[in-house]
Amino acid sequence: MREVLKIFKIGGGIIDDAAQLNQFLAALAQVPGRKVLVHGGGKGASQMLQDLGIAPQMVQGRRITDAATLDVVTMFYAGKTNKQVVAGLQARGVNALGLSGADGNVIRATKRPVREIDYGFVGDLDEHSINADLLQQLLDAGLMPVFCAITHDGQGQLLNTNADTIASSLARALASFYEVELHFCFEKDGVLADINDETSIIPQITPGQYQELKTSGVIAAGMVPKLDNAFAALDAGVERVVIENALKINEPVKTILCRS
Amino acid sequence: MREVLKIFKIGGGIIDDAAQLNQFLAALAQVPGRKVLVHGGGKGASQMLQDLGIAPQMVQGRRITDAATLDVVTMFYAGKTNKQVVAGLQARGVNALGLSGADGNVIRATKRPVREIDYGFVGDLDEHSINADLLQQLLDAGLMPVFCAITHDGQGQLLNTNADTIASSLARALASFYEVELHFCFEKDGVLADINDETSIIPQITPGQYQELKTSGVIAAGMVPKLDNAFAALDAGVERVVIENALKINEPVKTILCRS
Repeated sequence: MREVLKIFKIGGGIIDDAAQLNQFLAALAQVPGRKVLVHGGGKGASQMLQDLGIAPQMVQGRRITDAATLDVVTMFYAGKTNKQVVAGLQARGVNALGLSGADGNVIRATKRPVREIDYGFVGDLDEHSINADLLQQLLDAGLMPVFCAITHDGQGQLLNTNADTIASSLARALASFYEVELHFCFEKDGVLADINDETSIIPQITPGQYQELKTSGVIAAGMVPKLDNAFAALDAGVERVVIENALKINEPVKTILCRS
Repeated sequence: MREVLKIFKIGGGIIDDAAQLNQFLAALAQVPGRKVLVHGGGKGASQMLQDLGIAPQMVQGRRITDAATLDVVTMFYAGKTNKQVVAGLQARGVNALGLSGADGNVIRATKRPVREIDYGFVGDLDEHSINADLLQQLLDAGLMPVFCAITHDGQGQLLNTNADTIASSLARALASFYEVELHFCFEKDGVLADINDETSIIPQITPGQYQELKTSGVIAAGMVPKLDNAFAALDAGVERVVIENALKINEPVKTILCRS
């Protein structure tokens, strides 16, 4: 039987709140077994861009990562946030190791091709992006990889990459070696059956039920891309996807997406 | 016979000059065998502190690392510089892995005690600071550790730490497992016999010769702490210390400090 590997993804909201981040890290330290963390950005980088007088570059309503922006987000995500999270986990007895995709060539991305919009220094991942061999060696050495949302192209260029995409790609690539649980942690307790009732958590959703929930309009528009992505990960071999509150990862309330 | 491990330390000057940094990284990629890089800061962090309106904190002429300064140097050293160096080495076929001391608990420091001056968030190292076991595992996995000058105290606090000290401490701790060569790379070709003659490189210095050179005043005041530190590393088991030009690491001109 394969070992369980839990991959947690946290977003910017919790990164911005030191007390909540500490609460999450304390809970994460209690999770037994092999685990990986992927963290998003937070508002700190945007604030720093503003403080440095670097105007946000927008094209057709989409944010562009120009060279100055890439510099700041790399500093913020790979420097400040990643090292604070790693030091916070070390303080709680977890042997965390911070990684960008460039470190150990662990995630190699491709700069997004210019079509209607030139997104700038943004990296897309494919099925060959993840260096699963090295990740296994790091996990075997008792380390917990902690990823920021910066990758590289193998030619010396760093690239800004979506943290959800990194988490899903890691889960898919490692599903050949582990029984992978992919945990998307956010500010709600799970997927709601009634958007106006925070307690209406749907405990479990199968692919068939998901189609019904989409058809009946129960699942709100904003959740659809996240859940489509989650079910795609299940199709690709991930054992289960968990949608849960970042502050309640060790509590039973959550939504579990499973293959059947 | 033990394997050779070469530890290179580069300073801020070369970090600030993209063309020189690329030249160094290309030369470093040509160095065979196991190797480690430690990089200092550079002026970028000072410039960013200025751009953000964070005034340098000075006490009795010494720079203090307050919380705001620590944030910026962590971003700059562990984020921007470290990831650029790692991506640059990856582009040249070197499987570099960027590390702060918090990552894998690889360097645990102690916040400098407040005596006459409170230096703020500055970390000092001792003989137990280096996690040599993990470094051996990383080197065995074919990785080249790349250290920035940020460590942690194991209690969640990041600390600014002198890059020369990190390089020396790594060299001493790894000398039990490897035949360690410690390379201090700077802007001159080596130790000069005549400070006004850049070609007057002393090719080799033994401890006895060093005492004579100090007594006779040939070695200038500024070099003494660096060389004292280097000879202390030799006393502690490091095989040799090399003082050389960062842009000429694969050329024969250099000063080699050896135990006898």
